[in-house]
Amino acid sequence: MVILDQTQLPMLRVEQRCTSVAMLIEAISVLAIRGAPALGVAGAMGVALAAEQAADAAADFQRSVRLDAALLVAARPTAVNLAVGVQRALAAVGDAWENPTVARLRLTAAAEQFHAAEVWCCEQIGAHGAGLFGAGARICTICNAGALATGGYGTALGVVRRLHADGLEPFVWVPETRPLLQGARLTAWELGQEGIAHAVLPDAAVASRFGLGLIDAVVVGADRIARNGDTANKLGTFGLAIMARHHGVPLYVAAPCTTIDPTTLEGSAIVIEERSRDEVAGTERVTVPADSPVVNPAFDVTPASLIDAIITEDGVHRAPYAFAV
Amino acid sequence: MVILDQTQLPMLRVEQRCTSVAMLIEAISVLAIRGAPALGVAGAMGVALAAEQAADAAADFQRSVRLDAALLVAARPTAVNLAVGVQRALAAVGDAWENPTVARLRLTAAAEQFHAAEVWCCEQIGAHGAGLFGAGARICTICNAGALATGGYGTALGVVRRLHADGLEPFVWVPETRPLLQGARLTAWELGQEGIAHAVLPDAAVASRFGLGLIDAVVVGADRIARNGDTANKLGTFGLAIMARHHGVPLYVAAPCTTIDPTTLEGSAIVIEERSRDEVAGTERVTVPADSPVVNPAFDVTPASLIDAIITEDGVHRAPYAFAV
Repeated sequence: MVILDQTQLPMLRVEQRCTSVAMLIEAISVLAIRGAPALGVAGAMGVALAAEQAADAAADFQRSVRLDAALLVAARPTAVNLAVGVQRALAAVGDAWENPTVARLRLTAAAEQFHAAEVWCCEQIGAHGAGLFGAGARICTICNAGALATGGYGTALGVVRRLHADGLEPFVWVPETRPLLQGARLTAWELGQEGIAHAVLPDAAVASRFGLGLIDAVVVGADRIARNGDTANKLGTFGLAIMARHHGVPLYVAAPCTTIDPTTLEGSAIVIEERSRDEVAGTERVTVPADSPVVNPAFDVTPASLIDAIITEDGVHRAPYAFAV
Repeated sequence: MVILDQTQLPMLRVEQRCTSVAMLIEAISVLAIRGAPALGVAGAMGVALAAEQAADAAADFQRSVRLDAALLVAARPTAVNLAVGVQRALAAVGDAWENPTVARLRLTAAAEQFHAAEVWCCEQIGAHGAGLFGAGARICTICNAGALATGGYGTALGVVRRLHADGLEPFVWVPETRPLLQGARLTAWELGQEGIAHAVLPDAAVASRFGLGLIDAVVVGADRIARNGDTANKLGTFGLAIMARHHGVPLYVAAPCTTIDPTTLEGSAIVIEERSRDEVAGTERVTVPADSPVVNPAFDVTPASLIDAIITEDGVHRAPYAFAV
């Protein structure tokens, strides 16, 4: 499978061919592929790739594919979509585990169907979310919940994209999103490609934009939504939510239903991935003294009480949230 | 005058000799010298340097020194201490403008006195502030309000330093402080030198530290305190203040009285310095697409209502704040 290496944007547009599950896992680990819905698609496609490469002997085939599937799921723990994509693909094999040729066809079809469904979901999310806004809305997002993070179109940026398509001229505040700068590098790049007005700012500059009355709403994606609506998303979302509430500004979560994990009852049960020190402390230019410890969680959890609505493909959900299993 | 170039820390400890006011202004502009109290000292010393270099003809001498003084003040608009340091030095010349030799002696003495007074202030601030805490306090700061930002000892870090000296074993959360990373580079370096426990984290990670109950207080420095207590400080302070209040955690501002500007009635009147795009967007490694606008304010204003106390050399002030002219 061919992926767009998101670590190289905006300087370079590099396509990378993943010819093994190990290469795909590496691409997921370094965030060459990232974003919860895109990880779901990668998970489904990854199982199809595993099946392509597995030996034909029936017993080995199933063991090999299931082992690769487990490794894929373990590559990133917080986003539930990765596991969902893998599980959907595995389920699609049905009774064909004894017949690798049929299994491979079913897996490829399931991955393509999963991908198409995610794109459809994003378009629906865009339509539902756009209904919450009028002309000239000034929307703050975080990280990248756009086409790059999904099968295409985007979740939070799907809402923005739809407003733009409808001629409502949204403006987007883009926090750079340390440490890996997905806002500055990816969201700004996507918005520039579409001709949507925006500005990049340091994460810590959002507070004073609220204070100056320059933000009408916050719209973010999600990596895992607990049954009660508590939402894990990119580090900093919780802070945005507190600042938004302090200023009476609404915060909306935009995500496909595959991001909802009703088996997780509340946010405190969500595992937060801790990433490497090097992402913060630098390697070429060292920015933290060698002896100073670094904390680098990839996500935080925003309590449902600070979320004004959760926008999915089936509509706009409001509190109390109690998603069915 | 010789300065420690703070842009090189923690990788290199480089001393830089400023042999002209123009060189000193450049050092201030690129933040080789930074921090409100240190800027005050640099302002006073800069006037002494201007006098050293001015021609001896009396009329030229005064005009030359006053012109350099005005350029120094204009180098950074938000921190009031720079202007105060310059004004104190100019005032010290008294009736000696006609006699450059005497004027130079007075200016050198005034600069040294100003420096000594700032150090004394920091020690007093440390003592007053330490009285607010018990053993094992987990304190979040921002940017660098330490020895590097002052004549020595520090304001916010003066409080921490005193707690450490008293054997109360404080722990410091150090937000990296984008875009120039004064927290990661400078505060972590200072704390490491003193053997004080700390951890560096992305600015956006502070919210979840609050959520996990890991922060007992926020202590920050200040660049300008308005008469009513509204406080301009490093970008992100306002966000910390909102998050602290949301979690019932106190926020203290630690600063010498030279930082209080009673002629500024409230925060909205404080000029916020907008710095260059390159600090955020990068130059060697471009992190923002060329066509995307960048907003890069150096400071924000925290309303007095979110500040639990302002700690100066003369004690712990609490609301309502009404500083005398």
